[in-house]
Amino acid sequence: MERDETAPALGRNAQQADAPSPATAPGTRRPGGRTARTRAAVRDAVLGGLVELGYPGLSVEYVAERSGIHRTTLYRRWGNLEGLLVDALDLAGEDSWTPPDTGSIEGDLRALARMTAATFTDAAAAAAPTAVIAAAFQSERAADALRAFYEERFARCEVIVARAVARRELDRNPDAGALVRAVVSPLFLKLFITREPVGEQQADQAADMALAAARAGVFDIPPTSAGAV
Amino acid sequence: MERDETAPALGRNAQQADAPSPATAPGTRRPGGRTARTRAAVRDAVLGGLVELGYPGLSVEYVAERSGIHRTTLYRRWGNLEGLLVDALDLAGEDSWTPPDTGSIEGDLRALARMTAATFTDAAAAAAPTAVIAAAFQSERAADALRAFYEERFARCEVIVARAVARRELDRNPDAGALVRAVVSPLFLKLFITREPVGEQQADQAADMALAAARAGVFDIPPTSAGAV
Repeated sequence: MERDETAPALGRNAQQADAPSPATAPGTRRPGGRTARTRAAVRDAVLGGLVELGYPGLSVEYVAERSGIHRTTLYRRWGNLEGLLVDALDLAGEDSWTPPDTGSIEGDLRALARMTAATFTDAAAAAAPTAVIAAAFQSERAADALRAFYEERFARCEVIVARAVARRELDRNPDAGALVRAVVSPLFLKLFITREPVGEQQADQAADMALAAARAGVFDIPPTSAGAV
Repeated sequence: MERDETAPALGRNAQQADAPSPATAPGTRRPGGRTARTRAAVRDAVLGGLVELGYPGLSVEYVAERSGIHRTTLYRRWGNLEGLLVDALDLAGEDSWTPPDTGSIEGDLRALARMTAATFTDAAAAAAPTAVIAAAFQSERAADALRAFYEERFARCEVIVARAVARRELDRNPDAGALVRAVVSPLFLKLFITREPVGEQQADQAADMALAAARAGVFDIPPTSAGAV
């Protein structure tokens, strides 16, 4: 996949993975080839199956049929259904997405929040990531894979905070991971817990909330810890 | 149920509902009697079944067996499995829980956040509410019931903000619903999306974030809307 500046955060990869074309174009970390194509085909089948059937309905047999890869190969290389799911999510995380770079922290955080809202309110874009979030309720290994996926995603977003500090927009030493998580948290609450609508107004408010809290020092790393960094 | 000042927010009712004893003690809105006992027994069976089997494994037959209520009665009164689930959640919301009242908005919001963290990190307390949150991924009616449950829960929490305004702790006109949702949102993100640990430190930070944002005016109701209130 090529870098896509408009790619919504925290969901776009799974959406792309769900598309029928194998994601073996230049730009993926693992170059193309038969193994990479197999892995991408399996990932597409796993995510597509999750969307279609949910985790309780998914099976290795289904993945074999949809991917065209023989099930003995699937069992040998991935072990079981959970292994397939974990690898699908690992692969979905191997893209070149970068967070928004608008020139200001306010703009970056609002853009990040709006991307998240836009992804999860677009039925096609939301299907695969939502299915993975649901699967994590039923599989400990899916939950572990989801944790790793988001950890890496939020680590990429921390550059937003570093740039703001460098620009002297933020005269603080915030925990960047806590700050960027805060930006999207009211949106995820509404999307998956309280099941309320989200849109640009909610996205901007969430971003502004995180920034106001950062400016007030809520995310500051305590001096003792900061000294050790 | 009697009022319980230590009851964790947003989960305690479901936990109580999951206990084997029918929740027909004084204090419930619908007084005891055969109908109320039946309804409570059905709710306990539904929530217990969700915890044990998840939504995909739950059936009217299971609820009949676990509750001791004949399945023809269940079909007649609740229609189907979704009807059972919706009513179980409605009943779980009919308690006398009130939000913390510590004397300060900072204390109230921190206590609310800590309650939420404590509920969902206690396996027994978390089981039923977590199962309902998971079920909402698979049932539109469960999602609707969950939305109604949390809407009512957060409406109860708005008194925290009203008290703070009355005490002149908050010289603002915030959207109380947005503020109290913000308090718990980083916790729900970590619990159910990024699958990261939560504890008192995360709870306090979430509460402080919401309060700092409120003081900065992020949740202020625009003057035009405020004038209409």
